[in-house]
Amino acid sequence: METTIKILEKVKLKNPLLVEGLPGIGNVGRVAAGYLVNELKMKKFAELYSPHFLPLVILQNDAVAGMLKCEFYYHKGKKRDIIVLTGDTQSITPEGHYEICGKILDFVGKMGVKELITLGGFAEGKEVVEPRIIGAVNDKKLLKKYDKLGIDFGKEHPIGTIVGASGLLLGLGKVHGIDGVCLMGETFGLPLITDPKAADRVLHVLIKVLGVKVDMSKLENTIKEMEERIDKTDKIHKKMLQQISKGKPEDIKYIG
Amino acid sequence: METTIKILEKVKLKNPLLVEGLPGIGNVGRVAAGYLVNELKMKKFAELYSPHFLPLVILQNDAVAGMLKCEFYYHKGKKRDIIVLTGDTQSITPEGHYEICGKILDFVGKMGVKELITLGGFAEGKEVVEPRIIGAVNDKKLLKKYDKLGIDFGKEHPIGTIVGASGLLLGLGKVHGIDGVCLMGETFGLPLITDPKAADRVLHVLIKVLGVKVDMSKLENTIKEMEERIDKTDKIHKKMLQQISKGKPEDIKYIG
Amino acid sequence: METTIKILEKVKLKNPLLVEGLPGIGNVGRVAAGYLVNELKMKKFAELYSPHFLPLVILQNDAVAGMLKCEFYYHKGKKRDIIVLTGDTQSITPEGHYEICGKILDFVGKMGVKELITLGGFAEGKEVVEPRIIGAVNDKKLLKKYDKLGIDFGKEHPIGTIVGASGLLLGLGKVHGIDGVCLMGETFGLPLITDPKAADRVLHVLIKVLGVKVDMSKLENTIKEMEERIDKTDKIHKKMLQQISKGKPEDIKYIG
Amino acid sequence: METTIKILEKVKLKNPLLVEGLPGIGNVGRVAAGYLVNELKMKKFAELYSPHFLPLVILQNDAVAGMLKCEFYYHKGKKRDIIVLTGDTQSITPEGHYEICGKILDFVGKMGVKELITLGGFAEGKEVVEPRIIGAVNDKKLLKKYDKLGIDFGKEHPIGTIVGASGLLLGLGKVHGIDGVCLMGETFGLPLITDPKAADRVLHVLIKVLGVKVDMSKLENTIKEMEERIDKTDKIHKKMLQQISKGKPEDIKYIG
Repeated sequence: METTIKILEKVKLKNPLLVEGLPGIGNVGRVAAGYLVNELKMKKFAELYSPHFLPLVILQNDAVAGMLKCEFYYHKGKKRDIIVLTGDTQSITPEGHYEICGKILDFVGKMGVKELITLGGFAEGKEVVEPRIIGAVNDKKLLKKYDKLGIDFGKEHPIGTIVGASGLLLGLGKVHGIDGVCLMGETFGLPLITDPKAADRVLHVLIKVLGVKVDMSKLENTIKEMEERIDKTDKIHKKMLQQISKGKPEDIKYIG
Repeated sequence: METTIKILEKVKLKNPLLVEGLPGIGNVGRVAAGYLVNELKMKKFAELYSPHFLPLVILQNDAVAGMLKCEFYYHKGKKRDIIVLTGDTQSITPEGHYEICGKILDFVGKMGVKELITLGGFAEGKEVVEPRIIGAVNDKKLLKKYDKLGIDFGKEHPIGTIVGASGLLLGLGKVHGIDGVCLMGETFGLPLITDPKAADRVLHVLIKVLGVKVDMSKLENTIKEMEERIDKTDKIHKKMLQQISKGKPEDIKYIG
Repeated sequence: METTIKILEKVKLKNPLLVEGLPGIGNVGRVAAGYLVNELKMKKFAELYSPHFLPLVILQNDAVAGMLKCEFYYHKGKKRDIIVLTGDTQSITPEGHYEICGKILDFVGKMGVKELITLGGFAEGKEVVEPRIIGAVNDKKLLKKYDKLGIDFGKEHPIGTIVGASGLLLGLGKVHGIDGVCLMGETFGLPLITDPKAADRVLHVLIKVLGVKVDMSKLENTIKEMEERIDKTDKIHKKMLQQISKGKPEDIKYIG
Repeated sequence: METTIKILEKVKLKNPLLVEGLPGIGNVGRVAAGYLVNELKMKKFAELYSPHFLPLVILQNDAVAGMLKCEFYYHKGKKRDIIVLTGDTQSITPEGHYEICGKILDFVGKMGVKELITLGGFAEGKEVVEPRIIGAVNDKKLLKKYDKLGIDFGKEHPIGTIVGASGLLLGLGKVHGIDGVCLMGETFGLPLITDPKAADRVLHVLIKVLGVKVDMSKLENTIKEMEERIDKTDKIHKKMLQQISKGKPEDIKYIG
């Protein structure tokens, strides 16, 4: 089985921009993307499955099991449309990150995406009182465009790498001719801790870039609602990855 | 070499239902599936080999070596036919689980399977006096169907994930348009210990769902007969996986 | 790059039988196969390269670097021809074993091979004074054929598995319709120790099966000549595999 | 996504010779290749991306993120042209080394390359006062050709293996019918330490072989300029590989 994108609805989008928010440090990207999906009442139109995800299904409280997946949502805007990519997980293998990001870019490229924004957390390793937004672009010419949004493009805050989808979508995007920016909210970076404050900061910058109106007052509540599923997938990933690394792969192999 | 299904007999089946019981916790699924195959005198019609199994052959006491494999059996019923999938092993890699389950669903889908039941154990981590059957479905609408069978669909017993074939066949089944339910017998969950009581409980529910008559009195005896092969494959898996995780891959590499 | 067989000479063989002797416990198979190649003055006609070997080249003392490879040799016999498969290494990944053995069987199958013999050592974990030959077949009907050769087919000596090429060539051979027997010489099984006595015992049985005349007096000398290359590849494998398992993959990554 | 070579400029080259200098021990090859590119003002004409690199992007100080990649440069010479292959990284998987080197040889083979030189460091594990150049070839006939250049072809200095691209390009080159020599500068071999002296020695031999004039006086300065990027990629690799081996793969999975 290869990484597969299942299309649920065929949509034609107007100059669409891709926003990616997948699980990661402080769950900043996932929470911000999820809130945007909720507030804009975005509609899911595609799902991505991959053999590079953990080999298991997640159960909701109603005993319904479902695949680990990433999801594509769309929003019809006045000037342009928005695609949001969010989901339960990222690749558990290095090659998988490349395969998945390649498939995503092929898919959204065909839909006309020429610009993308990836969201994430930036782990400071200590308490962050006033989280800044750290930015990175995939082409120097883009720095001007994002000039007046209060994003820190690394002058005082040099970072070395961006790992996973938020990084590779920028890098591979460049190869595909897609402009990209990554917005990272500063956060402590403790495992399994969702950081609403960093997500709030990222969202503030994001909605300015997107030119959409979003009521930010419900973020804390929405996070509480999302928490259950986030918590479940976070714990699964942590536990599974520990078992893999502690050499207990037999525990992963099956329940059934 | 890819995961391959070798067809031994071409059969046409009437609205067939797939029952999966592969090795796993307490060997509940494997034992239950094996007993069903024995009692219904089911006939093997296909075998599955995979590069995601351990790279070795198993020797029977008569010095005949054979591949690790999964096996497909069929039973011609009055109203509908049954396919049972059982075998020696599951994938030893995460990607392999996806590949193997994808191939299985392609294969049985072409045979007309629209419904599947996966069997397994549910590890309680402690002695279980009266094992319950924990259930999960891949579509909410199925909960009604299995309503009156004494299956616990998680209200008092929330579980988070189902790992391996029993889980992925549900999840990928949904993507293939196949309805699925997973029946898990509560068991202690100690490694290398087969739990006949949990298998017995699973079988009782299973035969009600299937509408077949099965003499349950021989289960303990049959388990004793199966024990030798189960024991061998269990020990092999345990030993091999320990060697992989303890960093002695050279020991796995070859006898010959 | 896939596993590739490079043909050096196109040969037509008469009812050829494949003998496999690759590195393994006590290097019994490799040494026995190598001696046969020497004594029968067999000619190399093909080489196998694989991405599942270690990513390095071996240097001979003359500073000439060459790929890790397996090699196919042929011998024209009176009644039937013989192919010997020997080489520096086996797969370092589980999937690789399946891929490589699958390619080998496809290749020799096209040349008309209907029968194969795999050679190896059987680790006793203690000093062996009078090494026996332990055997396994891939079809019950073959037991009769090898009845009178003093091979122990497991009655007193049950073994559970045969790992690597010697095992998978039997198992996959069966799937390809090729009859197979594995001959294993009992040996201590210490790492990096070549066991000439076990190789001698295996060769004695092998030449009876093959019906060829081989002067056995030069074995010790030939082993001494082979020792340098065997030693080099053994040490490389041991060192590399230790580094992989001790988590120093950076050391493997490159010299250059 | 497969390993991909993106062509930036279509060039026709005259009997081109490939020089490879990728990261490795003492960064000898990378520094020597990079200096040659600088001094000959070579032009980049192709880039190689691979799913076998770490799944991340590197950020320059200007906040521009770019893929990990290898780069091909060309130089138009009087008698013959030169291609230099250098870059940030090598494969992080064994299979990846084979895939990447296979793709490189296919690519340069089509451009007419019949000869290649790989550059690297040779770790002595102790201080080296006067670094020698250790050499290896992929065909005995080449020893004569490099006879008078002061290269030590292993008589006093037997080495066993060459790991990674510098080795596999020799070995696979032979299979592709491309003559190859590897030049290794003796160095201490400490991690993360670039050795300018060994690079200087390698360059002296290399420019004699290439028949080009290169001002060697700027090497130390150029290394200082290269140091920032080298340092960044070195540290990333070291950190990532440690995390992989220490069983903290979750840390690698994402920032975003």
